[in-house]
Amino acid sequence: MSAVSGPRQRLPVAVLGATGAVGQTFVRLLAGHPWFELAEVAASERSAGRRYGGAVHWIEGSMPAPAAGLEILPCDPAAVRSRVVFCALDAAAAAEIEPLFAQSGALVFSNAKSYRMDADVPLVIPEVNAAHLGILAVQRERRGWPGGIVTNANCAAIVATVALAPLHAAFGLDRVFVTTMQAVSGAGYPGVAALDILGNVIPWIADEEPKIEGELPKMLGRFEAGSLVAAGFRVSAHANRVPVEHGHTVCLTVGFERRVTSAECIAALDSWTVPEEIRALPSSPARALVVTHSADRPQPRRDVNEGGGMTVLVGRVRPDPLLDVRMVALGHNTIRGAAGASLLNAELLAARGQLPS
Amino acid sequence: MSAVSGPRQRLPVAVLGATGAVGQTFVRLLAGHPWFELAEVAASERSAGRRYGGAVHWIEGSMPAPAAGLEILPCDPAAVRSRVVFCALDAAAAAEIEPLFAQSGALVFSNAKSYRMDADVPLVIPEVNAAHLGILAVQRERRGWPGGIVTNANCAAIVATVALAPLHAAFGLDRVFVTTMQAVSGAGYPGVAALDILGNVIPWIADEEPKIEGELPKMLGRFEAGSLVAAGFRVSAHANRVPVEHGHTVCLTVGFERRVTSAECIAALDSWTVPEEIRALPSSPARALVVTHSADRPQPRRDVNEGGGMTVLVGRVRPDPLLDVRMVALGHNTIRGAAGASLLNAELLAARGQLPS
Amino acid sequence: MSAVSGPRQRLPVAVLGATGAVGQTFVRLLAGHPWFELAEVAASERSAGRRYGGAVHWIEGSMPAPAAGLEILPCDPAAVRSRVVFCALDAAAAAEIEPLFAQSGALVFSNAKSYRMDADVPLVIPEVNAAHLGILAVQRERRGWPGGIVTNANCAAIVATVALAPLHAAFGLDRVFVTTMQAVSGAGYPGVAALDILGNVIPWIADEEPKIEGELPKMLGRFEAGSLVAAGFRVSAHANRVPVEHGHTVCLTVGFERRVTSAECIAALDSWTVPEEIRALPSSPARALVVTHSADRPQPRRDVNEGGGMTVLVGRVRPDPLLDVRMVALGHNTIRGAAGASLLNAELLAARGQLPS
Amino acid sequence: MSAVSGPRQRLPVAVLGATGAVGQTFVRLLAGHPWFELAEVAASERSAGRRYGGAVHWIEGSMPAPAAGLEILPCDPAAVRSRVVFCALDAAAAAEIEPLFAQSGALVFSNAKSYRMDADVPLVIPEVNAAHLGILAVQRERRGWPGGIVTNANCAAIVATVALAPLHAAFGLDRVFVTTMQAVSGAGYPGVAALDILGNVIPWIADEEPKIEGELPKMLGRFEAGSLVAAGFRVSAHANRVPVEHGHTVCLTVGFERRVTSAECIAALDSWTVPEEIRALPSSPARALVVTHSADRPQPRRDVNEGGGMTVLVGRVRPDPLLDVRMVALGHNTIRGAAGASLLNAELLAARGQLPS
Repeated sequence: MSAVSGPRQRLPVAVLGATGAVGQTFVRLLAGHPWFELAEVAASERSAGRRYGGAVHWIEGSMPAPAAGLEILPCDPAAVRSRVVFCALDAAAAAEIEPLFAQSGALVFSNAKSYRMDADVPLVIPEVNAAHLGILAVQRERRGWPGGIVTNANCAAIVATVALAPLHAAFGLDRVFVTTMQAVSGAGYPGVAALDILGNVIPWIADEEPKIEGELPKMLGRFEAGSLVAAGFRVSAHANRVPVEHGHTVCLTVGFERRVTSAECIAALDSWTVPEEIRALPSSPARALVVTHSADRPQPRRDVNEGGGMTVLVGRVRPDPLLDVRMVALGHNTIRGAAGASLLNAELLAARGQLPS
Repeated sequence: MSAVSGPRQRLPVAVLGATGAVGQTFVRLLAGHPWFELAEVAASERSAGRRYGGAVHWIEGSMPAPAAGLEILPCDPAAVRSRVVFCALDAAAAAEIEPLFAQSGALVFSNAKSYRMDADVPLVIPEVNAAHLGILAVQRERRGWPGGIVTNANCAAIVATVALAPLHAAFGLDRVFVTTMQAVSGAGYPGVAALDILGNVIPWIADEEPKIEGELPKMLGRFEAGSLVAAGFRVSAHANRVPVEHGHTVCLTVGFERRVTSAECIAALDSWTVPEEIRALPSSPARALVVTHSADRPQPRRDVNEGGGMTVLVGRVRPDPLLDVRMVALGHNTIRGAAGASLLNAELLAARGQLPS
Repeated sequence: MSAVSGPRQRLPVAVLGATGAVGQTFVRLLAGHPWFELAEVAASERSAGRRYGGAVHWIEGSMPAPAAGLEILPCDPAAVRSRVVFCALDAAAAAEIEPLFAQSGALVFSNAKSYRMDADVPLVIPEVNAAHLGILAVQRERRGWPGGIVTNANCAAIVATVALAPLHAAFGLDRVFVTTMQAVSGAGYPGVAALDILGNVIPWIADEEPKIEGELPKMLGRFEAGSLVAAGFRVSAHANRVPVEHGHTVCLTVGFERRVTSAECIAALDSWTVPEEIRALPSSPARALVVTHSADRPQPRRDVNEGGGMTVLVGRVRPDPLLDVRMVALGHNTIRGAAGASLLNAELLAARGQLPS
Repeated sequence: MSAVSGPRQRLPVAVLGATGAVGQTFVRLLAGHPWFELAEVAASERSAGRRYGGAVHWIEGSMPAPAAGLEILPCDPAAVRSRVVFCALDAAAAAEIEPLFAQSGALVFSNAKSYRMDADVPLVIPEVNAAHLGILAVQRERRGWPGGIVTNANCAAIVATVALAPLHAAFGLDRVFVTTMQAVSGAGYPGVAALDILGNVIPWIADEEPKIEGELPKMLGRFEAGSLVAAGFRVSAHANRVPVEHGHTVCLTVGFERRVTSAECIAALDSWTVPEEIRALPSSPARALVVTHSADRPQPRRDVNEGGGMTVLVGRVRPDPLLDVRMVALGHNTIRGAAGASLLNAELLAARGQLPS
């Protein structure tokens, strides 16, 4: 974590859907955050009115003490006053509630799929496509919103995108075959039943493959002439659930616009640099991308917490008999792939002085 | 299991490497076998001379009573008298020992990789390429062996091949992307350390990907004019270890020589039939290939024992955005993918009256 | 499974709560049952009216074909006509519904805790306390029911009771310390969340310890002079959930009314015999109790299916430095500990010609 | 971790058996240690002469950079020059090698069982029985060693002892029933085979129960008149292996010399204080003992890293129907139960200026 000049005083922020698994990760990552202060938590009507500490079945480590005393608010802009809002609601609720907050002047950092693929909604990984935030001005004008919606991608799509970004920049992706082995925490809590996954693989995750196939080209596309233009490569995905707590492992087989060797790919991955503006953000890891050199790494249980869960690891970069190169990527699905991703987006706008206050 | 006219009386058979995981599976499957009688067990010098029941750490269910009393012989044709020999030795030992048995007149049914890719060694799945056994005559002539070596493939390769055989026959495979999620029993016993795999994925299995990439085209090739001619399609594989006891799950993405729909593929899989000669063998399952129709199947823990572990299940057959079709295959790695596979090969030769006696 | 003269033709039976985990186990065990025919399935209002095959997320193997076509009835004696009713409802629903069926003339075989400890309700393991069924007459008279309720115990309590029954009969139990390590299937489906139990132990199961402490003495008590008299020993229990699919492992430390050696205990366990009347029942295993002699057995994954899941295994019988003897018991929680237990109770009454028809 | 005046400059220390699982934990905990500097690593002849970084299959996180460059020495006082030696050898090797180092003037901090129960060898948990270190003088005199051996207990015994120490001090233990559920890391690496423990419980750990039963009374005894006097209470143990990575969970049922309530026990646990001398040691956690108050805690996966793995958690303190009180304790087996325990012992002697240099 590097120092950068952030807001003069900690900005009050809210978490919508704060009782669920991703919501809890937001609460955990915001504890002691140097720029943001968790001022409000909101959840469904069922929990509203109760103390956060009493209403939540906390699923990892111990609940941060300051959060425990917060009263749970309804997910309503009339009740939530923070202008910076992290949204961990499910897609159906987010589809309805996020626009209300944007309309009310809040900037919503969303994990939900609801608006990710909209033409005027940025789908951002700061290290990869910070320029996409330019579309926010279009969004505000087109929708008449004083606030707005900034999204981050599906957790598996984020891991794959960080791994592929240096390669796309260097060589131009043509096609990508993706097979994921995803952790149970990606399904929320209670999420996957133990009887379904103990000693088992579920070769299917509802709605996951289309997200991966659509979000990668959007994220690796360009913002130009006031539009987001998706990259031209195509993606094919298999999504699997495996008995792992945290960390999505992603097997990638990649073809480029021209013939590329695995040595060229490793060099491109190793030499990839993140702009200083991004590296200086509080949640930015020392290295956003690490190339592992052991034959059997990366592995979720052993590597998932690298960089506080914000580092994507890439290993086994090797030639492919059919396309150009094969490799394995790994990232923490609830941190880099969800709450940490939103947080980093908000930090970037904070550093640029573009957060509402 | 169907009835067919087998040998008049049960043939004595031997298992080499009988103390290991695959060796134990042979011993288990041979208990009560209608055609074969486990007459001899052999293992490394370290165990030779001891009773099987006292020397083996039995890892699944209970040891069949008749096996317990057998004395463990050395893996030496001078000590082992059966002319039908199942080999569960590791590759280094098999490379040395199998030819000695073939030379001595035994027919060796081998799980080892040592000779699988030799031009004159059949690599057989009876339902798929029984004709390849024709190469045995060439092998005997060329090597001057009164016996011979018949091999079965790598466990993951067998699962993929059964799933792909009907499609290759119907449409002609052009290229196949394979990502496996393999059970720990595939690594033998003690094999994978618990500390390496509990709640983890290991995205690498030593030497596995080249086996898959090489063995599939050989198995789906033709025997013609006294030669085995590999099929022309190419394969790219990612091999992963997952915390599953038994059952390799294989994600397949397939391109054909011409455009093919997933409906055509499902029809080809559903209508695939196994010759009556094969279906009548004792270890042949009611259905060698089953197409599942639930969105989330097949799953190893739930489906691996279908057909006594000899059935391969295929599910999620769906269009692919880059090639033609995607699907998931599953099979039992130590039964269909190892000991049961050898046994079925031996049964086929027994039914044809081609076993030495 | 042995032959005995059962009913002339298969009796129609119903399963209440047929959509849940225990309900599904009833449906599975009843498929092809020689004496009973699954005629009706019933569940909550939410499922009523749908076909069983379409309404149920089947969690183990494949649904028996005949069950799939049944229409789900409401749990109401006006709708369910079978006079033999297996109840897999949760305690709250069972408390209300079981008496309605008993009142209507049905004999209810219940897994629920609701009436287990009532003075006039038998809590039965046929091999252990078949005589307790004598209380049914008292129950009918006292409650004015033409039918009645027969219960089986908590799953962990059943395993412990089968293991202790021969010792209590031989030496008289004085006190028993119980620590359980219970499988996730004991919590039903979806039951335990994967995020709660993967690589974890939960040292608590709601309401489990009092059940174990109360039900053991009732089951090992006597039926005399028209009353059930609990045995005088006392029980202390720790209940834990572990990441195991099926099979409750129970550590037992036992003190008797007099000093007893572990050799005496092993002899008592080994020589324990089940009356021929019970052994002849269709669901009765070849041996209700097996003493294992390996240092590290019994183990749930390896031993749970012994006797079709109806055998209790006892191992590591050894002296205790504080009391008399220590040992480990294991049994299948959804078969011997739930659905199979009810079924065996019903078979015993069928064999005695005491089922309503 | 608190500040205390330690050695003026970092003391060079050696780790014997540095390549194994506990040895690696020593290396990890010593990285950046304020008082000790890992100067030497030693292992069996097989590894000696190689660089640590090249010889070791590192099993958790990443190897500390300084350790990687060390040459592995033989476990021989002629080769190892550090006077402070941490020993992670197995019992057979430790039995032979530790006295050689003690004879040569080194102070050996040992994890091995070899000398734990010797009358003149301290078995120390600093928070519990620091006074036992007084026996070192006796040991040196009796054995003629310029150095000596200080041991820490079996991992499960340490967890239980920390939990019981406040109760023994307050009320006097009379008898203790222990049932453990132990993590796989307790068996070293490769240790437990995945095929043995995935989805399973092994109700036996070689040699574990006698250790627990013997070491608890020794640790909770007194050092008086130049002798270690074991406490008078008796212990009965069941030891089980469960599919957990780190963290031994221990169910305890306790009887005291007089009747004691669970409220009294909770008060004694809550009010237990660690002497300032101990709390100030670098590896000392903020709280050596934490009483949890959720019904379902402590849990290994969620609580094992409390206090950097040096805190023991106690929960579910409740009355027992047979003795006085029941509870559940949890601690990190390779940190608090092994390497961290040795380290804390060494730190205490360092703070007292009693380490050889």
